[in-house]
Amino acid sequence: MSTHVLRLSCVDRPGLVRSVSGLLFDCGGNILDAQQFDDCQTGRFFMRVVFELGGEAGAVAAGMEQLAATHGMDWLLRSTEHRQRTLLMVSRFDHCLVDLLYRHRIGELAFEPVAIVSNHPREALAITNIGASEFHHFPVSAATKADQERRIEELIEEKGVELVILARYMQILSDRLASRLAGRCINIHHSFLPGFKGARPYHQAHARGVKIIGATAHYVTPSLDEGPIIAQDVEHISHADTPDDLVRKGRDIERRVLARAVRNHLEERVLINGAKTVVFRD
Amino acid sequence: MSTHVLRLSCVDRPGLVRSVSGLLFDCGGNILDAQQFDDCQTGRFFMRVVFELGGEAGAVAAGMEQLAATHGMDWLLRSTEHRQRTLLMVSRFDHCLVDLLYRHRIGELAFEPVAIVSNHPREALAITNIGASEFHHFPVSAATKADQERRIEELIEEKGVELVILARYMQILSDRLASRLAGRCINIHHSFLPGFKGARPYHQAHARGVKIIGATAHYVTPSLDEGPIIAQDVEHISHADTPDDLVRKGRDIERRVLARAVRNHLEERVLINGAKTVVFRD
Amino acid sequence: MSTHVLRLSCVDRPGLVRSVSGLLFDCGGNILDAQQFDDCQTGRFFMRVVFELGGEAGAVAAGMEQLAATHGMDWLLRSTEHRQRTLLMVSRFDHCLVDLLYRHRIGELAFEPVAIVSNHPREALAITNIGASEFHHFPVSAATKADQERRIEELIEEKGVELVILARYMQILSDRLASRLAGRCINIHHSFLPGFKGARPYHQAHARGVKIIGATAHYVTPSLDEGPIIAQDVEHISHADTPDDLVRKGRDIERRVLARAVRNHLEERVLINGAKTVVFRD
Amino acid sequence: MSTHVLRLSCVDRPGLVRSVSGLLFDCGGNILDAQQFDDCQTGRFFMRVVFELGGEAGAVAAGMEQLAATHGMDWLLRSTEHRQRTLLMVSRFDHCLVDLLYRHRIGELAFEPVAIVSNHPREALAITNIGASEFHHFPVSAATKADQERRIEELIEEKGVELVILARYMQILSDRLASRLAGRCINIHHSFLPGFKGARPYHQAHARGVKIIGATAHYVTPSLDEGPIIAQDVEHISHADTPDDLVRKGRDIERRVLARAVRNHLEERVLINGAKTVVFRD
Repeated sequence: MSTHVLRLSCVDRPGLVRSVSGLLFDCGGNILDAQQFDDCQTGRFFMRVVFELGGEAGAVAAGMEQLAATHGMDWLLRSTEHRQRTLLMVSRFDHCLVDLLYRHRIGELAFEPVAIVSNHPREALAITNIGASEFHHFPVSAATKADQERRIEELIEEKGVELVILARYMQILSDRLASRLAGRCINIHHSFLPGFKGARPYHQAHARGVKIIGATAHYVTPSLDEGPIIAQDVEHISHADTPDDLVRKGRDIERRVLARAVRNHLEERVLINGAKTVVFRD
Repeated sequence: MSTHVLRLSCVDRPGLVRSVSGLLFDCGGNILDAQQFDDCQTGRFFMRVVFELGGEAGAVAAGMEQLAATHGMDWLLRSTEHRQRTLLMVSRFDHCLVDLLYRHRIGELAFEPVAIVSNHPREALAITNIGASEFHHFPVSAATKADQERRIEELIEEKGVELVILARYMQILSDRLASRLAGRCINIHHSFLPGFKGARPYHQAHARGVKIIGATAHYVTPSLDEGPIIAQDVEHISHADTPDDLVRKGRDIERRVLARAVRNHLEERVLINGAKTVVFRD
Repeated sequence: MSTHVLRLSCVDRPGLVRSVSGLLFDCGGNILDAQQFDDCQTGRFFMRVVFELGGEAGAVAAGMEQLAATHGMDWLLRSTEHRQRTLLMVSRFDHCLVDLLYRHRIGELAFEPVAIVSNHPREALAITNIGASEFHHFPVSAATKADQERRIEELIEEKGVELVILARYMQILSDRLASRLAGRCINIHHSFLPGFKGARPYHQAHARGVKIIGATAHYVTPSLDEGPIIAQDVEHISHADTPDDLVRKGRDIERRVLARAVRNHLEERVLINGAKTVVFRD
Repeated sequence: MSTHVLRLSCVDRPGLVRSVSGLLFDCGGNILDAQQFDDCQTGRFFMRVVFELGGEAGAVAAGMEQLAATHGMDWLLRSTEHRQRTLLMVSRFDHCLVDLLYRHRIGELAFEPVAIVSNHPREALAITNIGASEFHHFPVSAATKADQERRIEELIEEKGVELVILARYMQILSDRLASRLAGRCINIHHSFLPGFKGARPYHQAHARGVKIIGATAHYVTPSLDEGPIIAQDVEHISHADTPDDLVRKGRDIERRVLARAVRNHLEERVLINGAKTVVFRD
């Protein structure tokens, strides 16, 4: 028995669930989980189905090809065994990186970390064990930014990278690179967006006197901190918290929000819906 | 266009989603929302579908009748316009009652409150406006309990009550009445079950020194505070909270947990699964 | 025995706690609760003390007068029996109003509601029982705004109003009125500020695709939605929530955040610290 | 300038705050933070003060000695520079251990990890880097339990261990060892106590069908899972979560609850109050 996940979106019309479930039944599949969503405002339909099958999923793929042609579907079919080749990028603060790699090591996050890129040298990080991943120090300055991004792109090419995670990578990607990685580059921003975009959000939060801080994981787009949001979480704070306290409390929020977003992405639960996301819950 | 909700459960087998979605398609229905769940441990399948239709749902009902016979399904089909005739029961503390009636008044909770029963007289309650509901004072003592429950049952009969809500009704129903109301009687217990069953749970919580308190809405069964849980929520507390503070903070938790459970029940999102529930999220 | 609350702020210097606790001891007071905060950034000291006393608090007040003169203190001393005369303002949505009045009725919020002002007529509201409060319908338009605010100010004068609560009052106060009510006018804004200022925040939140919504209670200042924040809270939402769902879910957040802010204000737990607040926890 | 923390408890009586703040003032101290709590039910007073001083704290200690004699105080005075020598104990699941050591490494948790003891061999753990800590494999069986505990006690003696953290150490300490470590041994239990004591709490939670799971950090006492609670936290779950999902989601709760409890303990914020704790908030 093999298990597969299918996700798709198209213009809504009656019969879509029947068509997809019929195809799976005809191919001998048994649906384990199915979730759908009709966006009333845009008239768009989104679906995610997990199913098991006696053999390979070739017939399902062929059927989907046809369905997709008929209905103008975006779709993706993947074995749940697939491990996305992932590039992790980090600057000085490595709590998210450490967390992602630990979750990978104990089997909680099913990706394959192929390389780590930092604009800081290896010894600037607290992390000791990066497992089998290559570490690349790609320093960057205003003058060398274009060059540095070229090195990143080459690495992505060479390693067959499917997913890029900005695990507190504090450089802004160029519009060009951001666009190229559309839908497969996840950033963690250390504020509850849309509040406190840009630099030093915890200091902004402290100055404003908010009573709750948060973190936001989103897909990277050319518009800074405005990409489709995948996950958010928050913690209550008080007047007694200094900016340093917020940084400390924020680390816990950041790492769990990023991990949740990455997990949902890897399980194909996240479908992009214009400037927003559909996230089918686990 | 009319909108309907269908919920069903049966032993899991391939093709169930296809059968149901096929039936709806053949009857001219358009699925607006569908959620399903396979309980791996029991091999049972649960589904909830909301769909719209040009005319009446008679053909769907007829089709379901057949499907149900084939697959041994429990099922229910209802117009989303249906308003369950509801009996509200309360003792001295009426914050949940006031809350439910306000939510009803502004259209947030779609039920029809037909009567309120209390073991305390009308003037013992803080509530001023009970709208069109009848108020019945059914006092109760150890000696009169059987009689009092008979009056409740007569009222249920007479009014065609479909749902009973124990909105901080502090009497324990007899096994007989609890069994009779199986699956249609919701209680709010003022603790995070299974902690602190029975009487004075906030005082128990204070004595134990927990750092979080909670409330639990569940279906009533003959086993006290052990019925299938529908909803729970919690709040952080501290050593400085007295039992009275817990009672106060608990009121907020109780009313939102009960309202959420009632809403989910009314929208046919709650399916009983042995001693547990499946709650399809809104 | 009488119980009193003292709150004060001044420039920080050694010996402040000793001076205050010494004064209370000399007057025969017993401290029940004391909290303090030093704002390292501004060098300002904040304190709140609850104490009980055999007789009246005249000697404490006299002592504080002297201390305040020496240290340039802002201070306030009040019996915990004091009930602030409160004006409640509301527009169409009265869930916060209903909630505040119910909490007042059962003794949870210790204020005296002296009048309710709405820019809508009495019958536009769902609320049925407003207790002993007067209801005033003060309609408002661009042309009559100045007049309407004059009527509000007269009412405040006449009734000896100490606290104004904007319980979903959807008009923006003039700079003049906002300034006049500085530190004694609490608004509930239906977003997690600083995100989604201004009109229709739930629709803004839906359009942005956030995964959490919130509400913010703050003191009103001439800068719209930028006054010192007293309390905030949030709820997780999903892509499936329509703007109407957000409005519904938001009602629960709004009423509990506003109630918490009002309670903290009434208990003299909130001290203004520039554009921020110190909120001594209960 | 040196910074110190003082915590004390005694029978409540008027003048305690004045006495303590007077002593600190007379010694040239400046209070940075002070929190207190009167337990009305037991008549006991608790206080924690952080202060800075020009020189050493000898005069404060001498003064406290006298105060303590007069008032029958339990008290402790410590430099905030003090690092408690800590023994970490773990079985198979090392997410809490990894988390504590990472927090130590980046300076978030100020303790000195002197040794790690496991009943499993080094290679059974996922952790790769344990820093400067010694690792001891002390296997245990019913027959060898007394011996194994003797080895633990010797290690505690030899290393001058001040704090023991059971970071998912799945053995029950003997009454003897539990008593010996009273108030300085913190355990993380993977349920929201008092629900689901004992073995396999996530499986118990799944079987009961709760809608929220939690974790509890508490001081170890001879009564299993009944020691004074220091911190608790929870997460919402659903019917779709398998026991394995609960284990996974629980890891996040466990590590943040344990870290919070350890931090509060290290900062001398936790005072034992009979079977409960007073935790002065950060």
